[in-house]
Amino acid sequence: MDVKAVISEVLQRIRPTEEERAFVKELMDELGEIAERIIDELGLEAKPYFVGSLAKDTYLAGDHDVDLFLAFPLETPLEELREKGLELGKVIAERLDSYEIAYAEHPYVRASYKGVGVDLVPCYDVKNWRDVRTAVDRSILHTRWVNEHIKGKNDEVRLLKRFLKGIKAYGSEVYVRGFSGYLAEILVIKYGSFLDVLRNADFMLRQKIIDPENWLRKEPEIAMKTVRREVEEDRPLIVIDPVDPRRNVSANLSWEKYGVFYFKSEGFLKEPSIEFFFPPVATPGDYADELRRKGTHLLTILFDRPELVDDVLLPQLEKSARGIETALEREGFRVFGRNYGYSDKKAFIMLEVDRLERPAVKIHPGPEFFTERGRDFYRKNERVWLVGKRLYAEKKVTENVLDILSSLLEKNQVSLGKNLREVVKNADFLVDYVPGELGGEAYLFLSRKKDSLKG
Amino acid sequence: MDVKAVISEVLQRIRPTEEERAFVKELMDELGEIAERIIDELGLEAKPYFVGSLAKDTYLAGDHDVDLFLAFPLETPLEELREKGLELGKVIAERLDSYEIAYAEHPYVRASYKGVGVDLVPCYDVKNWRDVRTAVDRSILHTRWVNEHIKGKNDEVRLLKRFLKGIKAYGSEVYVRGFSGYLAEILVIKYGSFLDVLRNADFMLRQKIIDPENWLRKEPEIAMKTVRREVEEDRPLIVIDPVDPRRNVSANLSWEKYGVFYFKSEGFLKEPSIEFFFPPVATPGDYADELRRKGTHLLTILFDRPELVDDVLLPQLEKSARGIETALEREGFRVFGRNYGYSDKKAFIMLEVDRLERPAVKIHPGPEFFTERGRDFYRKNERVWLVGKRLYAEKKVTENVLDILSSLLEKNQVSLGKNLREVVKNADFLVDYVPGELGGEAYLFLSRKKDSLKG
Repeated sequence: MDVKAVISEVLQRIRPTEEERAFVKELMDELGEIAERIIDELGLEAKPYFVGSLAKDTYLAGDHDVDLFLAFPLETPLEELREKGLELGKVIAERLDSYEIAYAEHPYVRASYKGVGVDLVPCYDVKNWRDVRTAVDRSILHTRWVNEHIKGKNDEVRLLKRFLKGIKAYGSEVYVRGFSGYLAEILVIKYGSFLDVLRNADFMLRQKIIDPENWLRKEPEIAMKTVRREVEEDRPLIVIDPVDPRRNVSANLSWEKYGVFYFKSEGFLKEPSIEFFFPPVATPGDYADELRRKGTHLLTILFDRPELVDDVLLPQLEKSARGIETALEREGFRVFGRNYGYSDKKAFIMLEVDRLERPAVKIHPGPEFFTERGRDFYRKNERVWLVGKRLYAEKKVTENVLDILSSLLEKNQVSLGKNLREVVKNADFLVDYVPGELGGEAYLFLSRKKDSLKG
Repeated sequence: MDVKAVISEVLQRIRPTEEERAFVKELMDELGEIAERIIDELGLEAKPYFVGSLAKDTYLAGDHDVDLFLAFPLETPLEELREKGLELGKVIAERLDSYEIAYAEHPYVRASYKGVGVDLVPCYDVKNWRDVRTAVDRSILHTRWVNEHIKGKNDEVRLLKRFLKGIKAYGSEVYVRGFSGYLAEILVIKYGSFLDVLRNADFMLRQKIIDPENWLRKEPEIAMKTVRREVEEDRPLIVIDPVDPRRNVSANLSWEKYGVFYFKSEGFLKEPSIEFFFPPVATPGDYADELRRKGTHLLTILFDRPELVDDVLLPQLEKSARGIETALEREGFRVFGRNYGYSDKKAFIMLEVDRLERPAVKIHPGPEFFTERGRDFYRKNERVWLVGKRLYAEKKVTENVLDILSSLLEKNQVSLGKNLREVVKNADFLVDYVPGELGGEAYLFLSRKKDSLKG
């Protein structure tokens, strides 16, 4: 299939139809009117702004959550903004179908209307970056900048977003660390088209700095500070925010996700296929076969899924998985990989380890022999010897990996996500076996299909 | 038992009797006469000197090998010294019972006479350190310096030597790296008695530099150069040679042997016992019990003992054992300890490892993804993923430790002593079993009694 045919087929699936556009337009008009009316009724000075992919017309077909920002004058004290903003959101949401309160830097309202999610977010009505006070304030500026520069390339952005979703590199959430929508928009604006962004995957990385608004010329001191900071952090890319020279748009982009993009871009350009955008669902094999093939073992820690949003739960699961890996490595086990996630009711952490038992003794390195601590170590240990000036001793240790892990957890010697400490301690520990619903997950993890760059 | 009683009992066993002294004196007189007569007959300008512990009267009872040095004038060209020196040695040795040629920096003659070993070593007749040209030249100066300074403390030296032998810290050979006889003599001269040397085990280490002839004052530039060099090498002690400011007498002393001396000195002063001088032979237990207790495994590499002197064989065995350890660690095995040695006909290397099998796959770290090598690695590997900017791949590997070791040896990927390369490749590889004659050795190794600082 040639690249044009692929792109045209993909566009058919991701470009909103006229009916969908009409529905979205009507929805936004209606919401805008409701918001303005209520602001008026309440005698507030706020202004409603639509932001996000709907406002920029870069949303994918079927994916049209509304971001309605309620912008207050800069003079409003922060406390007042939080309070009145949330109140305003609630009153608006009461005219809609349902709502709940969600929490980011500030609390905000997540409503639902005609089957569409509507976020009602209080912010400041900023004119430029010097006004920015809260994390969400820039959104209005982003929307404006994209709309001014996109020049009809909206479908190119759609292609890039869908491509990034297909290769699992989309989303700047901390548990994804991929490309944000705004970053995708900037790249299309900068390189001109979806294919040109892909063709520049290598060049971009080497050039490192993307500065569409020439901040390095206009605000050299501030922009250089940003560059130095981000170089220090060793980011794959430094994209100076067109609306704010202090910010790297791709600060959350990980090397892993950039790497996926890098190889998939090359792969797509060589052999274009619709599967990059819409990968087929992998048919999982038998995880027990994988364990036999590899000669490794699977530890699964299974517990009731805590009631936490993804933004909280997933980073804590990752931290806990890492903590357990570190603890086991310290105890002499080799951890081949870690995995985590949740299903409906359960959350899990999986670790692939090289064995289930270690020797019953370990060699314990001690201090230099001629120190106070050295003489103490010599006195306290029975089997003690020297390598160079350092004392070593043999210690009796637990052999079984589960016994070791239980005892470390007991003694709080494993770094865990703070909301998971208790649940992990009381979790089920499974060895080389997972319940049916996790079989597929275990297979994808052990076979490396989950994080493989290929297939 | 109090310290005096211990010392007096030890002295009875190590101080030569009057009969032994008379025998030694007669032997030396006789050898001296023979040497002088033959030098005369051959019309050479050489002079015979007795050096070593016999000449210094610091030998232990029953341990009286003769060092007879044949000193040539400084004008003698080195080639001539080697040739004529060896020739002279041979002619003298022909008057004795038997002899063979041995090799150090120069070839020399090892003869035997009346049941005593007699080394006939050619050297230069040096008057001071500026004349020194070959490694053995200093011996004459050492003998003279000790005899001038020992002031009747000969038995104190005997006690210290026997103590060092008892704790296995005696001998400056490269495969021992303990205290030389000359170092023991200097320490007794410096601190005044056997017990005072022991009492200063900690102080000496902290003071670091011992300079009995005040070279740091007399030849500050040269002596400081020595100090700086030896500090750089991180020696436990720097004993500036009383006869040569360029040399650290304890350059070959390892931290391990100093550590043994350190703890045993403290132990002896606290609880004096004859066992420090004459340790009881350990009664070996069952090595198989040790393996069960520890949950570890024993690999033994067994081969015909090569016909090499200790000075060559032992360092090569050590190097080979270390090479095998490094290779196995690289392959993911944990090596708990290494051991080597020989019996009458066989030489062996033993390694204690944590397991006999590893998983069938390993994680192979690759280059950074955006490099030429990275793209190559990506192309060549099937299961490949990223951690940060680095690529990783899964590789199929051999599981069994013996198969792994054989294959590494086959491919010359193990660092071995150069005379052992072929024999090790063709050796027998034993797992968790040793032939009867090595059972005791295996037990002492696995139980850590061999290198333990305690009992």
